[in-house]
Amino acid sequence: MLLEKYIRDIPDFPKKGIIFKDITTLLNNKKALRQTIDELYEKLKNKKIDYIMAAESRGFIFATALAYKLKCGFVPIRKPGKLPYKTYCATYALEYGTDSLEVHRDAVPKNAHVLILDDLLATGGTAFAMVKLAKKLSAKISAIAFVIELTFLGGKKKLKGYPVHSLIKY
Amino acid sequence: MLLEKYIRDIPDFPKKGIIFKDITTLLNNKKALRQTIDELYEKLKNKKIDYIMAAESRGFIFATALAYKLKCGFVPIRKPGKLPYKTYCATYALEYGTDSLEVHRDAVPKNAHVLILDDLLATGGTAFAMVKLAKKLSAKISAIAFVIELTFLGGKKKLKGYPVHSLIKY
Repeated sequence: MLLEKYIRDIPDFPKKGIIFKDITTLLNNKKALRQTIDELYEKLKNKKIDYIMAAESRGFIFATALAYKLKCGFVPIRKPGKLPYKTYCATYALEYGTDSLEVHRDAVPKNAHVLILDDLLATGGTAFAMVKLAKKLSAKISAIAFVIELTFLGGKKKLKGYPVHSLIKY
Repeated sequence: MLLEKYIRDIPDFPKKGIIFKDITTLLNNKKALRQTIDELYEKLKNKKIDYIMAAESRGFIFATALAYKLKCGFVPIRKPGKLPYKTYCATYALEYGTDSLEVHRDAVPKNAHVLILDDLLATGGTAFAMVKLAKKLSAKISAIAFVIELTFLGGKKKLKGYPVHSLIKY
């Protein structure tokens, strides 16, 4: 089964000229959803992974299912003000302005091995912010994984030095 | 293992007088996370469930892992403007004002059996908005499930007529 077949192109979303990769058509197909988790698992099962770090909202979608299969913990990365305990914060650039992500300071022990996971690698801003948060936690990054990579946007350059895995490349 | 032990109380969050139930300490413990998914699965495995509907962001956390175990699809419910295709919208009351949730119009076929899932049942506003969305999709609601139920807020009353399951009750 080719996972690409279950991803829907939506032209001009969120704005004119952009072709949005809609994963909801993959998620609501039970076989495609299952295969996505299984393929992520196969790519990552031999890495040392104690925790998966993933950012809201779409990063959460695959993180817990994969954490369940890998038998590891899940660390939610959230927008500012959402996490109730003491946090570290990392800022990243958007097309106009900046945005921030936060993680609980006690989310993982020092030297824990983490996987950074997201649904989509575009320009790499979100993933790089998660790299910065992992460093603030003194964690070791075992791998960075995505369901979809938009290779033409070159986001991988921001993640140099880390093993990057993607299931589907455009 | 008592799951309650892994939930952290944060006093005065998000505002004075509220004791916030922090699930991040459950999520980052691999055994507690695993047991949460397994307990949800045990409660729901004998229901007819074709799809799980869950709302961003925290609802996403348990939905895909449970969908994987139940071998069903996952339908993400999102804040307005996030879903790229044609949507149905349901509005619900907040303490001050209202908020809305959306679902893709083609998310499930007519008469599909759905489970509505969220991390926490408080006043029931979000869950009831998801009930309204399920009806707009002409789906049948097999059950509504939560990891945590704050029984003293009486949210269950809004969900009368549907089987409601909660793992942890306060």
